[in-house]
Amino acid sequence: MQITGETDLFFIVGAPVRHFRAPIMFNDYFAAKGHDFSCAGLHVLPADLAATFDLVRKVDNIKGLCITIPHKIDAVPLVDRLTEAGKRVGSVNFVRREPDGSLTGHNIDGQGFMRGLANNGFDPQGADVVQVGVGGVGRAIAFSLASSGVARITLINRDAERARRLAEEIEAATGTRVVALKADERPDLGRATLLVNATSVGMVGNIALPLELSGLTPACTVADVVLKPDETELLAAARALGCACVPGTAMLKPQIELCEEFLYGEASPG
Amino acid sequence: MQITGETDLFFIVGAPVRHFRAPIMFNDYFAAKGHDFSCAGLHVLPADLAATFDLVRKVDNIKGLCITIPHKIDAVPLVDRLTEAGKRVGSVNFVRREPDGSLTGHNIDGQGFMRGLANNGFDPQGADVVQVGVGGVGRAIAFSLASSGVARITLINRDAERARRLAEEIEAATGTRVVALKADERPDLGRATLLVNATSVGMVGNIALPLELSGLTPACTVADVVLKPDETELLAAARALGCACVPGTAMLKPQIELCEEFLYGEASPG
Repeated sequence: MQITGETDLFFIVGAPVRHFRAPIMFNDYFAAKGHDFSCAGLHVLPADLAATFDLVRKVDNIKGLCITIPHKIDAVPLVDRLTEAGKRVGSVNFVRREPDGSLTGHNIDGQGFMRGLANNGFDPQGADVVQVGVGGVGRAIAFSLASSGVARITLINRDAERARRLAEEIEAATGTRVVALKADERPDLGRATLLVNATSVGMVGNIALPLELSGLTPACTVADVVLKPDETELLAAARALGCACVPGTAMLKPQIELCEEFLYGEASPG
Repeated sequence: MQITGETDLFFIVGAPVRHFRAPIMFNDYFAAKGHDFSCAGLHVLPADLAATFDLVRKVDNIKGLCITIPHKIDAVPLVDRLTEAGKRVGSVNFVRREPDGSLTGHNIDGQGFMRGLANNGFDPQGADVVQVGVGGVGRAIAFSLASSGVARITLINRDAERARRLAEEIEAATGTRVVALKADERPDLGRATLLVNATSVGMVGNIALPLELSGLTPACTVADVVLKPDETELLAAARALGCACVPGTAMLKPQIELCEEFLYGEASPG
């Protein structure tokens, strides 16, 4: 990668940033696609996020931003417009600087998850989905699943009321049948063809199953959003039952491809 | 060059930036010195310079800035402190972000010029200098020459009063004898051992001699700050007279080395 004054700059805005390896992946991918592009981490504290966005509006060789922990929610009121995905999820993980300096916020979590499934050979058409967790990433995934032809989604959440509200919201927006379990209900895993863990349960230091697996059949694909470890306790148990497994990293890799489409694509979402 | 979250960021702040090739030189040089460093141009308009500096104070993986056209004078009141060279020249071409977020402004033009002379085998000790031009770069060069053991400096400037004021200032600061020619006086080139063009006369689109060369001897080294063309009309005429010549690029190349010392050096100027 050779940087000149013509190079488009792209920053991953977060705190902390020192552990980031992602700039390497972005730079390699964009170089392979033939873009004159340079990605670096920018260490921005929450109090400085608005000033950062203001400067990005002014500096016209900045192409965009990736927004990461802890800024994804705070970024929502700071952009000039949100894509439909950004609105639905209520959080921003990518920002595109438009030629007039205005900023478009987008959320690629849902699309990334769907591509990860597709790359692992899973077809959502007619699927019966059980999903645990309706936080930021969970919202994105549930909306994307509902827009992808699944037959039914069952949402499970520690705060059952929150799951109920999201179920209503998604049904109203997409027409897909979405039900939320009450606090004392248990899902019928026997008919599930996709089980999604959209919580951090199973992450390193947080080893456990997000739910009890009795009734799960080998016909069910099990997808986890947890990135570390690659093989969570959930995926290990599912694999032992003969299920196909989709690890958290599967949704991460397509995000760079989706980011490239968002920034440089002909039909990038407005 | 591989960028991660640990990479020090460095920006060349100017307007326009698209023609910049300098990031390549910075990145190659710093990589060769073993620094995890990435340089890119940042297109900042004058009205946005203060906001840019404020953000640099806050983002602790930014190591520093190179300041270029049109910001070198405007940057002076925006830094938290100036090095002696920055104070003397009254303009900033490099900024170092200190660990506490404060910004130190520096000017490397004079040191760069002196290294360029040394790299071309010129020893300033006892030199009799005739210098045309006392603008930003001219001030830097005259101060550095006066601090390097030259015997005498004669300053020539279209605005003779401005040359007189600088002569007094340099004499007071360094003790070196500095005289300014009046508007109707001509320099005695016969005794000069160094002739410096510190004006833009001779630049592409501005072809002419900065002064009449009668009396110049082969004992005089002729240095030009003009970068394009490499061989100005002045240098061509001096070469024809048998003089050693130092082109403008000679002072540019050491600036990257001086910048590296400023940012990473043990005894970087405070």
